[in-house]
Amino acid sequence: MNKLDSNVVVQIGIIVKDVEKTASAYAGLFGIPRPEVVPIADDSFANTTYHGQASEAKGKAAFFDLGPVQMELIEPLGAPSTWEEFLRTRGEGIHHIAFKTQDMGAAREFLASKGMETVQQGGWDGGQYAYVDSSKQLGTILELLHFDK
Amino acid sequence: MNKLDSNVVVQIGIIVKDVEKTASAYAGLFGIPRPEVVPIADDSFANTTYHGQASEAKGKAAFFDLGPVQMELIEPLGAPSTWEEFLRTRGEGIHHIAFKTQDMGAAREFLASKGMETVQQGGWDGGQYAYVDSSKQLGTILELLHFDK
Repeated sequence: MNKLDSNVVVQIGIIVKDVEKTASAYAGLFGIPRPEVVPIADDSFANTTYHGQASEAKGKAAFFDLGPVQMELIEPLGAPSTWEEFLRTRGEGIHHIAFKTQDMGAAREFLASKGMETVQQGGWDGGQYAYVDSSKQLGTILELLHFDK
Repeated sequence: MNKLDSNVVVQIGIIVKDVEKTASAYAGLFGIPRPEVVPIADDSFANTTYHGQASEAKGKAAFFDLGPVQMELIEPLGAPSTWEEFLRTRGEGIHHIAFKTQDMGAAREFLASKGMETVQQGGWDGGQYAYVDSSKQLGTILELLHFDK
C-alpha cells in the first residue's frame, strides 16, 4: 500500500463547546430538524486509547448528512482525548477530515511511514476509527474509518 | 429564503504556510501528481474587500478534487484577508467549508439575519465568493460560492 485506499472525504468533524446549541444553528441554516445528540465513546465497543493509554474520555455528537459528506459535531466530555486537546488548545473549529479504509493496519502504517502517527483510536458497534496527527504535514488531523460491513 | 439553497458541502479550505509543501504531502497520500499551484485574488476579477474595505491581499492555492468535495489549500500573501488573519491567529488549519448559492445577496442576507456577517468578498473569472464569519455560531467560517454558469 503506497496511498490511502480512497481519496474521498466522507466526514468533516467539528469540535464545539455546546453540541446542542451548535447543532441547532446548523439545523436552522439547513432548514431541517436538529438531529439527535448521541453519546460517543461511551460503551463497551469504545476501548478508547489516547497516545497508547486507555482513556475514559467520551463525547456528545450530532451528525448531519450533507449530500455525500457527513458533518459530525463533537462536544468533548472528560479527558484525555484529541477532542478535548483540540478544544483546549485551539478552541472551536474543524478538527478532522475522514477517509474510509478497508485495512486500518495498513493505512496507519502507511501514514506512520510519513511521520503521521495515530494519537487516538477506538471503536463503536460497527467499526473502528483512528485519529492520525498529520497537522504538521497536512494542516489538519486525519481520521481513518473502518466499517465492519 | 429561510435556509441555504443547498446543504451540500462542495469545498473544504485549509490555510497553510507553504502551499507547495503541503500540496506535495497530500499528493503523496493520494498517489497522484501534485496539482499546479495557482495565484488567487490577483487579477482584475478579484475586487477583494475585507470588512468592507478594498484589500490587495492575495494568495497561492492548490486544488484537489476528492470525489464530490474539493479541497483547497491556501497560502496567504499579504494582508488584510481572512486567510492571513486565520494563519496569524490560529495557525494552519481548516478555515472554511463552502456551499454553492444561486443568489449571493439573499444567502448573505439570510446569514446576516443570524448574526453571521460577510467579512471578505471577491470574485474570479467565473464567479463570486463571500466568506461569512460564523465561527461563533457554527464553529467554522462559511464560504458562499456563486458560479456565473
